[in-house]
Amino acid sequence: MTSFGFSLLATNGAARRGRIASAHGTAETPAFMAVGTAGTVKAMTADAVRATGTEIVLGNTYHLMLRPGAERVASLGGLHRMADWPGIILTDSGGFQVMSLAKLRKLDEVGVIFRSHIDGSAHHLTPERSIAIQHALDATITMAFDECTKFPATYDEVAASMRLSMRWAARSRDAFARRDGYGQFGIVQGGIFPDLRAESAAALTDIGFEGYAIGGLAVGEGQTRMFEMLDVINPLLPDHRPRYLMGVGTPDDLLGGIARGIDMFDCVMPTRAGRTARAFTARGIFNLRNARFADDARPLDPGCPCLGCARHSRAYLHHLFRAEEMLGSMLLTAHNLTYYQRLMAGARCAIETQTFEEYAVATREGWARGDD
Amino acid sequence: MTSFGFSLLATNGAARRGRIASAHGTAETPAFMAVGTAGTVKAMTADAVRATGTEIVLGNTYHLMLRPGAERVASLGGLHRMADWPGIILTDSGGFQVMSLAKLRKLDEVGVIFRSHIDGSAHHLTPERSIAIQHALDATITMAFDECTKFPATYDEVAASMRLSMRWAARSRDAFARRDGYGQFGIVQGGIFPDLRAESAAALTDIGFEGYAIGGLAVGEGQTRMFEMLDVINPLLPDHRPRYLMGVGTPDDLLGGIARGIDMFDCVMPTRAGRTARAFTARGIFNLRNARFADDARPLDPGCPCLGCARHSRAYLHHLFRAEEMLGSMLLTAHNLTYYQRLMAGARCAIETQTFEEYAVATREGWARGDD
Ligand SMILES: [Zn+2]
Ligand SMILES: [Zn+2]
Repeated sequence: MTSFGFSLLATNGAARRGRIASAHGTAETPAFMAVGTAGTVKAMTADAVRATGTEIVLGNTYHLMLRPGAERVASLGGLHRMADWPGIILTDSGGFQVMSLAKLRKLDEVGVIFRSHIDGSAHHLTPERSIAIQHALDATITMAFDECTKFPATYDEVAASMRLSMRWAARSRDAFARRDGYGQFGIVQGGIFPDLRAESAAALTDIGFEGYAIGGLAVGEGQTRMFEMLDVINPLLPDHRPRYLMGVGTPDDLLGGIARGIDMFDCVMPTRAGRTARAFTARGIFNLRNARFADDARPLDPGCPCLGCARHSRAYLHHLFRAEEMLGSMLLTAHNLTYYQRLMAGARCAIETQTFEEYAVATREGWARGDD
Repeated sequence: MTSFGFSLLATNGAARRGRIASAHGTAETPAFMAVGTAGTVKAMTADAVRATGTEIVLGNTYHLMLRPGAERVASLGGLHRMADWPGIILTDSGGFQVMSLAKLRKLDEVGVIFRSHIDGSAHHLTPERSIAIQHALDATITMAFDECTKFPATYDEVAASMRLSMRWAARSRDAFARRDGYGQFGIVQGGIFPDLRAESAAALTDIGFEGYAIGGLAVGEGQTRMFEMLDVINPLLPDHRPRYLMGVGTPDDLLGGIARGIDMFDCVMPTRAGRTARAFTARGIFNLRNARFADDARPLDPGCPCLGCARHSRAYLHHLFRAEEMLGSMLLTAHNLTYYQRLMAGARCAIETQTFEEYAVATREGWARGDD
């Protein structure tokens, strides 16, 4: 079995073209990871997810620990087998969703006590428990357990939260069972304060992880500040490890992140938008419920190989959403994920040919041009 | 282009093994047609429908005339092109659903005036309009426009309703534009009264259609009476034309219908059940929400080639329904339709080998045996 690794194949400015190798196959980077919250990318079969070019699926520890339960997933052969995804799976630590979804939280040095939003049952999530759950799920990439720092927050609040997360990162690393082809990522915190980000990056690289994530961005600080922080953080991270910007973002966020050296992204945006009739295309975002599409016989995004574009018209997709047919969500989710993956494939090719800047400019021009 | 035709390939008692040929390809009979109400088999891509072995999809004139509109479908290249179904499409006449779904109906000799259940708009459906709509949709098989006789009803009510439907059948036939490879079916009415059924069958065969449907059954009369009526009606219909039992039914209804000479069936049962966690299997019907499946690592129906059975466990399907994930409906709809199509494929093979009776007995024994 292969070791978990990351090869840097090419660079273009700060942009990086790489490859992740793991026990569950490889993934080309920059990579967009599809969010499969509860063991399924919503509205898609695993075959359909593969057809979009997706190589990594993300699972949510918080959701899966509550339902169907981590030990149950383990008894069903792990998340790969249960969900028909033999490829790479990354699981989050649960920390972010405990703070956003669960009720009656109590946080201390040990961890977080909370009640399930599903049935009110009490749970205790600690670094050790989070890592054990991710092990039970058979995550290829395990995330360190961290606190989700609120935004906005004062310097002192952010510093205290970040330092707690760094102590939890050390405990997460101790709790991680090293296995060939599996890896664990630490998460850089520190809000919008460069010196706290530097302190966090130093703490994590001291511990040493197979990859490094950037947390606590895309929480309301705006794209400009987010990009400023990436310019600060990325140079602090080792070149030979993948860098993952958590929960980001729009297609434009991805281009900006790649330009600054990010290798991995995840976001619910393409899949969630697909269920609400919003389409990402080379000509910007369309809302397919709009009456102007009722008689539009053209494909949604000419050149897109997805089923919705290759076999159907905008008018049909419009009809499916108006008639509240599930197939609308199914086709548009597949399209949006295909769009994101084609954007990433284009970026990878552009980095290889030293044309990433031109690629980004041309892509943004297409969005600005809008629909004909 | 081929003519519309029906070849009788084998018989076994009253059971028939045949083949429909049309402008949109062939279909082996006995055939189960998947219901694609609004231009989509709910929760399935057209590719997924094909993978179940389905060769004919049914479209609903009532739904499609209201949304997206028959002329719009025509401008999008017809239902085949719009919905990615180049195969055979049968459309109903709209009569049944006007009576069950629309509001403020007024019926007279000319036709039915009604208001849309979607937006309250007024519409007039007549035999001529129904046939024109089905033409605009590009139905391979057009159904004659008939009145949906209420049940229960007196002999005189049923007789009057049937005779109106027969006058409408003659007008439907006059309105039908004959095209190579396209066909039109008349619909035998007459409730549960053998002499009225005989009168109706005689009227329709006098007019002459490419096929004959049996309407007004499976409306509450019970399986025993339905089978009795099939024993009455089928001998009255020409051997060399397909016979279609409308809106039927359970797997057991299909076996009984085939035994009595029915060639075609349609029903929402497998698809609707798939969205409500009910699974048709070789061991009977399961409700996948049931807690007993939470840890059941076995495939839903061993030997079934569908994605849900081949790649997933009962426990995963249970989880998807509990978590209200769309994938549950997608996988189980595909499974149920696959089950129905395998039942039909088994029946076709059994008729060819003169073992249909044994096949039906063995199949029913499997259902009765239940789950292990
Ligand atoms: Zn597409
Ligand atoms: Zn199956």
